[in-house]
Amino acid sequence: MVDNSSNAPNIQLLLTGNELMTGDIVDSNSAMIAQQLLYLGLHIRKKVTVSDEMTDLVSEIQHLSQSADFLIINGGLGPTVDDLTAQALAEVAKVKIEQHPQALEHLQQWSKRRNFALNKPNLKQADLPAGCDIIDNDLGSAVGIKMTINDCIIYCTPGVPSELDVMLSKYIMQDIQLNLPNVHHYKVSRYQVFGIGESSLQKLINEQYTDWPKEIELGFRASMPLLELKLTCKSFQAEKELPACIKRLQSILGDHLVAQIDKKPLSFAKHIQSLLKDAKATITTAESCTGGMIASEITKESGSSDIFESGYVTYANRIKSSELGVNEAILQEHGAVSQQTVLAMAKGALAAASSDYVIATAGIAGPNGGTEEKPVGTVWIAWGSENNLQSVCLLLPGSRLFFQRYVTAISFDLIRRLLIGSAQVPLYIKERQVSSNPR
Amino acid sequence: MVDNSSNAPNIQLLLTGNELMTGDIVDSNSAMIAQQLLYLGLHIRKKVTVSDEMTDLVSEIQHLSQSADFLIINGGLGPTVDDLTAQALAEVAKVKIEQHPQALEHLQQWSKRRNFALNKPNLKQADLPAGCDIIDNDLGSAVGIKMTINDCIIYCTPGVPSELDVMLSKYIMQDIQLNLPNVHHYKVSRYQVFGIGESSLQKLINEQYTDWPKEIELGFRASMPLLELKLTCKSFQAEKELPACIKRLQSILGDHLVAQIDKKPLSFAKHIQSLLKDAKATITTAESCTGGMIASEITKESGSSDIFESGYVTYANRIKSSELGVNEAILQEHGAVSQQTVLAMAKGALAAASSDYVIATAGIAGPNGGTEEKPVGTVWIAWGSENNLQSVCLLLPGSRLFFQRYVTAISFDLIRRLLIGSAQVPLYIKERQVSSNPR
Repeated sequence: MVDNSSNAPNIQLLLTGNELMTGDIVDSNSAMIAQQLLYLGLHIRKKVTVSDEMTDLVSEIQHLSQSADFLIINGGLGPTVDDLTAQALAEVAKVKIEQHPQALEHLQQWSKRRNFALNKPNLKQADLPAGCDIIDNDLGSAVGIKMTINDCIIYCTPGVPSELDVMLSKYIMQDIQLNLPNVHHYKVSRYQVFGIGESSLQKLINEQYTDWPKEIELGFRASMPLLELKLTCKSFQAEKELPACIKRLQSILGDHLVAQIDKKPLSFAKHIQSLLKDAKATITTAESCTGGMIASEITKESGSSDIFESGYVTYANRIKSSELGVNEAILQEHGAVSQQTVLAMAKGALAAASSDYVIATAGIAGPNGGTEEKPVGTVWIAWGSENNLQSVCLLLPGSRLFFQRYVTAISFDLIRRLLIGSAQVPLYIKERQVSSNPR
Repeated sequence: MVDNSSNAPNIQLLLTGNELMTGDIVDSNSAMIAQQLLYLGLHIRKKVTVSDEMTDLVSEIQHLSQSADFLIINGGLGPTVDDLTAQALAEVAKVKIEQHPQALEHLQQWSKRRNFALNKPNLKQADLPAGCDIIDNDLGSAVGIKMTINDCIIYCTPGVPSELDVMLSKYIMQDIQLNLPNVHHYKVSRYQVFGIGESSLQKLINEQYTDWPKEIELGFRASMPLLELKLTCKSFQAEKELPACIKRLQSILGDHLVAQIDKKPLSFAKHIQSLLKDAKATITTAESCTGGMIASEITKESGSSDIFESGYVTYANRIKSSELGVNEAILQEHGAVSQQTVLAMAKGALAAASSDYVIATAGIAGPNGGTEEKPVGTVWIAWGSENNLQSVCLLLPGSRLFFQRYVTAISFDLIRRLLIGSAQVPLYIKERQVSSNPR
């Protein structure tokens, strides 16, 4: 849970701009602001986005400044008639707009470096609420504004991401820290998990770890196909309890734990690449229902040529025979979606590619092609090496794309478990395995 | 400017979730909602994001429902303790939470299809505010909620993008339209375009179509790899001018125009599928630098087995020889990224798959492996049929993933142009072709 306890500062965000309301762009500025605050252990309490309408802006600034300790306003500092932030701020503060000498100097320097004369729209950027402070902009023409209204410290920042970035890291974050009561930065630990959902894990923790430390917060982030877990300490005491907590969480997760996140979370394919590189081994793919997705995920990662030399997309039965040597009698007797076929595909690919490991898939992605015996969502996966080839049949109903993505992710997980020598049975096999072999 | 005039309905958005506040993810759900509203000519007036705190949720729903005609709430419908939307809604409406029979049935069906028993956290998803309506969720466990509070129609939607997408397009957008005051909807016409950017097209229009009708608005939506164009009439007069305007726009676009959008925009692969089906023809793929992405895009679409039987991911040189019969002398003399190799790959795949058409790719996706002669971003593409095989070398610098996606899209476009019998040279060849054949 986010710490909204009363001693945490109440930080709010106001984003302005018509383009944010029309869905043409995804707002990444607020993610940038949130990330910089997170380094200080601070969370945004509320975020409001409005279009460039004077009445909306004025009423929001008025409203938000009454509950926030800090309000960061992003956008609306530019030279055009749409840019209303300074004017709205003046209206809320009930002060006049006047030319700010430092802002004017900044504009003059800025235009001088670029060798052009200031025009009237440019000069508008020096017209600021009386009594405000300015925040330097190292890159652009618009200076930032700092002003206290209703006991709330307000920072107005430019919408251009690079300018915002510099302004935040060079000035605003320090200024917020200076104005905070004494706060400490506690430890955070992050993990990637596969094959266990948020609710299943929460249930296991409730059953097996009833004395979960109160001041360690467990957060989840669905980042298909991997789930991210985050442990955040809320006190010095919690930091002491963290190693023991991690140990118990790891024992609950078992081999559903894929990796600890160091800097950036890695893709599933990148994890497989690392394990194969460590084993100095290569892998090949024989795909029917996933249609090339497994190969594509592998080769999206740079460095994949070290561990991947070839893949086979054998969609039609006759190709399974001609390319991978699947006996036509097997196809006729057992069908394309069968243990016999997927194992023959896997063996054929291993031989053709001279690879160490293989993933083979044969299933019914839908929406058509299902039968009562083999409904849409049925898949046979084979994985392993020449001397250790395994197979499983799962039922994964859902949309075609969901099915293909899930089969791809499970295939990666099965190879991962083989490479780390896991003897545990993953939850998705327990829950999704089709007990009797469908024919 | 956004139409905030008084007769436009006041639509607001409330996004919930701690993860939205911490900067771990960039919120794309609100962009999706805004885009779907935009198709109806509707704009979002205000957007608020709060973390999963009961007091914040309750006060925001209370506050927003007083000014909004429609309020879309996204997130907080899941099974965990963090998911508080239903409870907050009940508190604002001053009704009890009770088990909703239809929601329960949905959960039972959902778990039955997946072959597992409902646990307690799952069952929580059937506990909804008394008197609410539910909105079907075709993909996931959480049903949506519809409820009117303070004369505001509130829709609660799940945070999982795919589930949100289906719920919006199948139910909520229609429902909003039904509840709108009588507004006249002027004609709208939409197109998919490839290989010409927004600014290039705007420039061509400015040059060649100076008398563009004032009351027909041209909108753009980047929807990689296809660009969407939308012509919106703003008056009855504009509706009369539309056919002539479309005709002139089409002549400016030439064969960069891929299709008119009927209901939903189709993927590039789906367009290729239709063209191949019309021609009763099949296609195969021989991929090096795209690593299976072309095959994967083709097979993501249902119905692909009619036009696609096999694909080859030949990453290593020795596999290009063993699988596709590329002469080793060609590889040694000209290298893997060469016209000779890509043509030999294409011929080999056509023969192995007995397909009518082929796409073959060989290039340097990066970030490593570039040379002065063949920098990162160099790609040879071959496409066509046995008697009409063509090839081109382009330079497409950018990230590895951008490169793979762009090569995939261009390959589709080249096959499309061949299938429609186009004699025009696309802009991307004019601009990106490497003049001297690199070796």
